[in-house]
Amino acid sequence: MRTVSTLPELRAVRAGLPEPVGLVPTMGFLHEGHLSLVRMARAQCASVVVSIFVNPTQFGPSEDLAAYPRDLPRDLGLLESEGAHLVWMPSTQLMYPPGYQTWVTVEDITQRLEGAMRSGHFRGVATVVAKLFNAVQPQKAYFGQKDAQQVAVVRQIVADLNFPLEIEVCPTVREADGLAMSSRNAYLSPEERRAAVVLFRALNAAKAAFEAGDGDAGHLRQVMVDVINGEPLARLQYVSCADPANLEELEGPVTQALLSMAVKIGKTRLIDNLLIEAL
Amino acid sequence: MRTVSTLPELRAVRAGLPEPVGLVPTMGFLHEGHLSLVRMARAQCASVVVSIFVNPTQFGPSEDLAAYPRDLPRDLGLLESEGAHLVWMPSTQLMYPPGYQTWVTVEDITQRLEGAMRSGHFRGVATVVAKLFNAVQPQKAYFGQKDAQQVAVVRQIVADLNFPLEIEVCPTVREADGLAMSSRNAYLSPEERRAAVVLFRALNAAKAAFEAGDGDAGHLRQVMVDVINGEPLARLQYVSCADPANLEELEGPVTQALLSMAVKIGKTRLIDNLLIEAL
Repeated sequence: MRTVSTLPELRAVRAGLPEPVGLVPTMGFLHEGHLSLVRMARAQCASVVVSIFVNPTQFGPSEDLAAYPRDLPRDLGLLESEGAHLVWMPSTQLMYPPGYQTWVTVEDITQRLEGAMRSGHFRGVATVVAKLFNAVQPQKAYFGQKDAQQVAVVRQIVADLNFPLEIEVCPTVREADGLAMSSRNAYLSPEERRAAVVLFRALNAAKAAFEAGDGDAGHLRQVMVDVINGEPLARLQYVSCADPANLEELEGPVTQALLSMAVKIGKTRLIDNLLIEAL
Repeated sequence: MRTVSTLPELRAVRAGLPEPVGLVPTMGFLHEGHLSLVRMARAQCASVVVSIFVNPTQFGPSEDLAAYPRDLPRDLGLLESEGAHLVWMPSTQLMYPPGYQTWVTVEDITQRLEGAMRSGHFRGVATVVAKLFNAVQPQKAYFGQKDAQQVAVVRQIVADLNFPLEIEVCPTVREADGLAMSSRNAYLSPEERRAAVVLFRALNAAKAAFEAGDGDAGHLRQVMVDVINGEPLARLQYVSCADPANLEELEGPVTQALLSMAVKIGKTRLIDNLLIEAL
């Protein structure tokens, strides 16, 4: 496994990689969710490139950039074990040098859900994803379904800007009790960790209601709200029952939907989602 | 010479082109300026791709999109003669399908000069250039010095977004009397055509003053203003004596500058520029 930091090094090593090349973009502090992306990339591509970059432009001023967990030696050990071929770890200085001034913005689908609560977040995501695609020039790029809106935004960028690659989405990987894996789970105290399963419980309660015949979008949102409100350590930020394609909130009877939510457990903000579909 | 319209066709033909591939992006109605770009690309690259696309998103609502001159059969004949290998002519529908919502914006250097007068122009330019780069995947892309600010914007995009290609800039090609070649020259009446040389005269007057020892940015701007105001058919939009790198307006003594201007001759808006540098 090679590790490179500068763009010329990356381009030189990239030029020698057998294609197709699969890119797994990460912010490091890897968990099983990331590793499932690496494994899918290994299965589908001749070469696997993993980027590790905690992207400052997708954090808001009051968010957790400085506190975001990092453990590079452990990350590199995991990636070596999984058989990644190349790890790109650019510095912030390289990615955003003085005078940096170009941004990629996606208009409609970034206005809702995470975008509505995290101003500028998706501008940072869209911009860094465009930079990573241009730097690595993969044939495929791998993202987790856990960040469902991010997946929708990345798909939109690829289609709109004609990036010559395919997006592959891997299912959310969960802990034994159902909590979606996230680097931010490291922030949780033991008590909060126990409470955090409430997101998955709420999503499953709505899914069960749907499967039992209640297909009303408003009802499904209310089911999730009620479960979250039943957990004293949880503070709801939003629940959504939306069109999976454009993330527009649905009303009335639904046959297919993305159920999603953001919930604060103590000071830690967690998100999760589940796709539901009539058989 | 192959001509293609759809993205799958483009990708298929592109995959078989010998590299390096040079891209010459145009809006058609080709003149000697465009052809000089094709010739430079031929000299430097194994394959030359020319795109012809009148990009609606870089025209303002009151600008000349509908009237913009077109002559595709003539353009294709010229490109065939020049030895271009592939012409890509995407439809507006292909480039901006329903639901299109992704934009590339460059902040600082688009605020001045053309950007200040043509709101949204450089967002359209930056976006279509990113799309063309991703669609064609050239190793080099060719632009004319006549659109000096466009060159600065494209260079910024390539650096900021890590596009894996080099920008090549060709000198402005001029008519015998010095008028910079432009597809928009076709709008000029014979009388306006004679008056239009005033831009080049004004630039040269400032250059002569500079070479005669007057290096004050304000003086040089005034020299240009005076020449333009001496032409009854001309209406000045701006003159500039700016830092060539970031296009910031200079004050006091200068050793290197981009002299530029926009002037309306009747209803036709023309731009031109000249680089000056102390020996």
